[in-house]
Amino acid sequence: MGAARQLGLNTGRLKPGPGNSITDVPGVLVGHWTRIEDGVATGVTAIKPHDGNLFQSKVRAAVEVINGFGKSAGLMQLAELGTIETPILLTNTFSVAPCIEALIEEAIAANPEIGRTTGTVNSLVCECNDGAINDIQARLITPQNAQIALESAHHGPVEQGNIGAGAGMTSFGFKAGIGSASRLIAIGEENFTLGALVLSNFGRAGDLILPDGRRPDPKIPPRPESGSIIIVLGTNLPLEERQLGRVARRAGAGIARLGSFWGHGSGDVSIAFTTADPKPHKPCLPISTISRLHDDYIDHVFEAAVEATAEAVLNALCAAKSVMGRNGRKIPALRDWLGQAG
Amino acid sequence: MGAARQLGLNTGRLKPGPGNSITDVPGVLVGHWTRIEDGVATGVTAIKPHDGNLFQSKVRAAVEVINGFGKSAGLMQLAELGTIETPILLTNTFSVAPCIEALIEEAIAANPEIGRTTGTVNSLVCECNDGAINDIQARLITPQNAQIALESAHHGPVEQGNIGAGAGMTSFGFKAGIGSASRLIAIGEENFTLGALVLSNFGRAGDLILPDGRRPDPKIPPRPESGSIIIVLGTNLPLEERQLGRVARRAGAGIARLGSFWGHGSGDVSIAFTTADPKPHKPCLPISTISRLHDDYIDHVFEAAVEATAEAVLNALCAAKSVMGRNGRKIPALRDWLGQAG
Amino acid sequence: MGAARQLGLNTGRLKPGPGNSITDVPGVLVGHWTRIEDGVATGVTAIKPHDGNLFQSKVRAAVEVINGFGKSAGLMQLAELGTIETPILLTNTFSVAPCIEALIEEAIAANPEIGRTTGTVNSLVCECNDGAINDIQARLITPQNAQIALESAHHGPVEQGNIGAGAGMTSFGFKAGIGSASRLIAIGEENFTLGALVLSNFGRAGDLILPDGRRPDPKIPPRPESGSIIIVLGTNLPLEERQLGRVARRAGAGIARLGSFWGHGSGDVSIAFTTADPKPHKPCLPISTISRLHDDYIDHVFEAAVEATAEAVLNALCAAKSVMGRNGRKIPALRDWLGQAG
Amino acid sequence: MGAARQLGLNTGRLKPGPGNSITDVPGVLVGHWTRIEDGVATGVTAIKPHDGNLFQSKVRAAVEVINGFGKSAGLMQLAELGTIETPILLTNTFSVAPCIEALIEEAIAANPEIGRTTGTVNSLVCECNDGAINDIQARLITPQNAQIALESAHHGPVEQGNIGAGAGMTSFGFKAGIGSASRLIAIGEENFTLGALVLSNFGRAGDLILPDGRRPDPKIPPRPESGSIIIVLGTNLPLEERQLGRVARRAGAGIARLGSFWGHGSGDVSIAFTTADPKPHKPCLPISTISRLHDDYIDHVFEAAVEATAEAVLNALCAAKSVMGRNGRKIPALRDWLGQAG
Repeated sequence: MGAARQLGLNTGRLKPGPGNSITDVPGVLVGHWTRIEDGVATGVTAIKPHDGNLFQSKVRAAVEVINGFGKSAGLMQLAELGTIETPILLTNTFSVAPCIEALIEEAIAANPEIGRTTGTVNSLVCECNDGAINDIQARLITPQNAQIALESAHHGPVEQGNIGAGAGMTSFGFKAGIGSASRLIAIGEENFTLGALVLSNFGRAGDLILPDGRRPDPKIPPRPESGSIIIVLGTNLPLEERQLGRVARRAGAGIARLGSFWGHGSGDVSIAFTTADPKPHKPCLPISTISRLHDDYIDHVFEAAVEATAEAVLNALCAAKSVMGRNGRKIPALRDWLGQAG
Repeated sequence: MGAARQLGLNTGRLKPGPGNSITDVPGVLVGHWTRIEDGVATGVTAIKPHDGNLFQSKVRAAVEVINGFGKSAGLMQLAELGTIETPILLTNTFSVAPCIEALIEEAIAANPEIGRTTGTVNSLVCECNDGAINDIQARLITPQNAQIALESAHHGPVEQGNIGAGAGMTSFGFKAGIGSASRLIAIGEENFTLGALVLSNFGRAGDLILPDGRRPDPKIPPRPESGSIIIVLGTNLPLEERQLGRVARRAGAGIARLGSFWGHGSGDVSIAFTTADPKPHKPCLPISTISRLHDDYIDHVFEAAVEATAEAVLNALCAAKSVMGRNGRKIPALRDWLGQAG
Repeated sequence: MGAARQLGLNTGRLKPGPGNSITDVPGVLVGHWTRIEDGVATGVTAIKPHDGNLFQSKVRAAVEVINGFGKSAGLMQLAELGTIETPILLTNTFSVAPCIEALIEEAIAANPEIGRTTGTVNSLVCECNDGAINDIQARLITPQNAQIALESAHHGPVEQGNIGAGAGMTSFGFKAGIGSASRLIAIGEENFTLGALVLSNFGRAGDLILPDGRRPDPKIPPRPESGSIIIVLGTNLPLEERQLGRVARRAGAGIARLGSFWGHGSGDVSIAFTTADPKPHKPCLPISTISRLHDDYIDHVFEAAVEATAEAVLNALCAAKSVMGRNGRKIPALRDWLGQAG
Repeated sequence: MGAARQLGLNTGRLKPGPGNSITDVPGVLVGHWTRIEDGVATGVTAIKPHDGNLFQSKVRAAVEVINGFGKSAGLMQLAELGTIETPILLTNTFSVAPCIEALIEEAIAANPEIGRTTGTVNSLVCECNDGAINDIQARLITPQNAQIALESAHHGPVEQGNIGAGAGMTSFGFKAGIGSASRLIAIGEENFTLGALVLSNFGRAGDLILPDGRRPDPKIPPRPESGSIIIVLGTNLPLEERQLGRVARRAGAGIARLGSFWGHGSGDVSIAFTTADPKPHKPCLPISTISRLHDDYIDHVFEAAVEATAEAVLNALCAAKSVMGRNGRKIPALRDWLGQAG
């Protein structure tokens, strides 16, 4: 049901999917590689829109840059072509390069014609800065680590909190990291799902607004917002790229509702994809038919995106456990604050 | 102090300016022309960044289209050139044309060389659909009406609620309209001001979240979000156009915090301008010096923009009085709900 | 075959449609209203993507702002929703308002529910400054004039040169105005058409590059680029909004090939629409199927867009007749220059 | 004077700087690392806006994505913050990751506080696909190779053609690679310089249009455009970020003039920076003064950008020597075609 609901925090009105996570969207997989040891807390998280060959069967997608203080790879081509052709990797700011390498290697292994008889491949990697907990300068993550995250991706429950890329992330002065949530969307007589997965490392201490209006204060010295959040929204609704862009944009409303003002130093990026009507790398026919939701129904999707984004962040916060920061101060867990406040 | 604070609603932490309105920004003026009679409730609101010749002394500005379901005029050139060269007029959706005419006439009267020995002028008009209360098809507003709004613009207190362009506007199922608020920003030893003025016509009934977490329900039949909001942010801080664009963007966070998910049918547009270092139409020298805030300090401005936007909407809601809708149903006032809830 | 080809100027390699104009795209109509008399040379040009009720059956579209120094109406909503729901009107800079009025009136006449039981309507009007020839300050165009342009729209040959909105326009120091051209696009075994219509008022005297490399000099005193060009691209190929945006963008390459550097003072705007799979205002079903060209074939469309844009400008220049400018100097015709150069 | 002028090809009307290259802009440096051997032809090119600590003294910049089919790193933050804080590295598509690593290492070496007491650093890397000549799958470039390109950067003449990142690049069916050019811009009584450096790998065989109208045909089998071009524009004119964005955009006109239609498969990206008024990482004062050119003078800069871009491409083509492609066919040199055509 999600860590936040277990702790009594409900966001929104729409009904979550059975697992209340992005893997409720049929076909979507999530995997992690985590390294936590003395002075090191970092990792890689992989989201696969489907379990097949993504280069051959690309999913339709769009991106919204809420605040562009970040170092992602692959967003320019995603915006131009409206497609994702590798898994999405999340990691720390200085490990984008090994993740690019891992995605190139995986794509070539499955499609040896890449860079030879066909074009190249667009690695998709997003990041947050885990330097408050992790020794980010050490740059310990290798392409092999990223490969493990890719290989471990699975359907079903998503591990959340201090895991994968989320190992060293914080939000609003509390330990955060990976969170996920989902919403069901009834369109006519059909049911669809929208899921969110976040790498949550944003939010200034003291700014968090809970759904019930409470504002948890971690009682740590204030510092400028220099976090970031990556939001991945997946759905099986048939949406075209223009519509997916509008959905991705609504993730910004989700985090604003939690008290964020999209701080200057925060790299806030949202990606939305649909598993409906994937695009073949090489088409059988020049013209094909696809499905599309009429815009008159898109408010359901917008609401689901806002709610799922906000709840995914709360799930990251509620699933996370307290750790020691690199400055020697404890970074508290929201669950402990809620326990004391409760 | 603002209608919302008078009713006990406080938004945010930063301190408002003395009038808690956009006219706290030195030089800014606001005027209204209102027509309320049987079946008609509409008008025009004028915002002047300064009282001089705006065509000769343009103010620096930027625009953020939060959701582009709207019929504004003048935004394309504003985005390209980073300047405002006429007052900003707000009105209803079908009265953009007479407002364009009024601004052209005013600009030519003051600058007879326009369209002859120099270029043309870019009228800036934004709108919301007041058709829930007003007979918008009748298109009763004339350029002369807009001229009165322009001429009546003054420093000092801003009339809010059912006035000017706000006469027929609603938000979250309650009567709304014009609202304003401001925040003080201390940069080093200097004090600056950021002010917001909104034409508030957005928000689905039941979606409003008050700063204390309450969710006022107007008990009217739900209908799709088809409102809109225009947000004008003014400041005397020296910001360049790129920075003003980032500030304009934060207005979206302000309305998200109130419960909006930026509905499909809502034309949500934010304009930010600074009165610092206006640009002459014809330069004395090719290269001039301007001031600029370092980005390290811009979070103060972002916070102020979010808070002032949210409070301006609450002021519109709290200042507005109940009216009868075109469908024969009463559109309640939030102040009445608060009185009963209180 | 087009005025430019008649004068020996061939642009590009692709084959034009039978009329070498935008009306080669099945269903598209063009009409003009022109007023030329002492000191006045202006008008309105109407492009209708189809002859039905555009509000009920919207066409898919996108816009590219090449250089945003212009005063168009309706582009923001076009970009957000990817639809055109009125005819496109072209006129002079100070006549955008009466054209907005004419489109609102026409839409309400055909759809009395607008502004009452359904939303409003997005008038689409673009403009150039004909002040070098026309007394633009006089603002002589009325909604009734625009209505005549709308009513006169027809299939078949497009009148070009000093006609409609093009009556008072110039390019590269020569008389210009309305021009059109088209290209055939073979996709698999099917043939499609892309057509361009331009309102050509851009280009500094001496900058024009003809397809054969010649650079016609009108021998008039140089002045800063302060023209503009509006480019309307229509096709019956099934393209989604993201793809239409990429096609619209290529119009910029078309005018660059003629020697333009997209001058600061030039409002250069391109709109691309497809007549394939129109969108109903109120959908029968929430989800419908549409067709889409695979991106692997889109280079054909890009080339056609570049060639048709460039040839449409040359057709405007070659169809236009010499007139007297407001400054008392003759504005020469390119056909006369070609005759003398020949 | 540049390889193109030596071969009789003159582009445009404005006067080049003394070296006719980007290093005519005071302070700018360029370096290369090249590897050419059996089946391998690739490298790295480094552009440094100045020779100091770029992280501490960032240059103002903007980016234009002409066609986003590319895999660059660092553009999102450049667009948001309007700054460049590392050298710009150019390389092949699959070597972006080692170049990111090299830039992070260099930045940390000079600024050990990165990732510890201050934020992270935004590596700026752009690429083209040299797979027609180079074994791109082998991914032979290391961070150490990139480091050599960085260290070798120098003022003065820029080596062009088959060098650095240009070793394996082609354009219009001819061997191409690195090219550079510059233009002088007189503003009032002061002289400024704009320079362009391109990594030229775009253009379909047969599409090239020379300034004199000739269309060189390399007589190789046609294939879809799948190249790319990276254009770096530098100047010492004081321009703000909004203006730099407009300048970067004009690079698209430069390559259109050469016959490009901005092909679907071509990643065409332009970056513009100014060395005027760099931004300190940590400001002495919150508000500082900067200089700015009035927009009335910006057409000079636009023209210079178009001309310098086009001539830089021609210089790449004219400096390059014929090589053998991976498919066993010779990729001819334009200089040989010109010699035979001459």
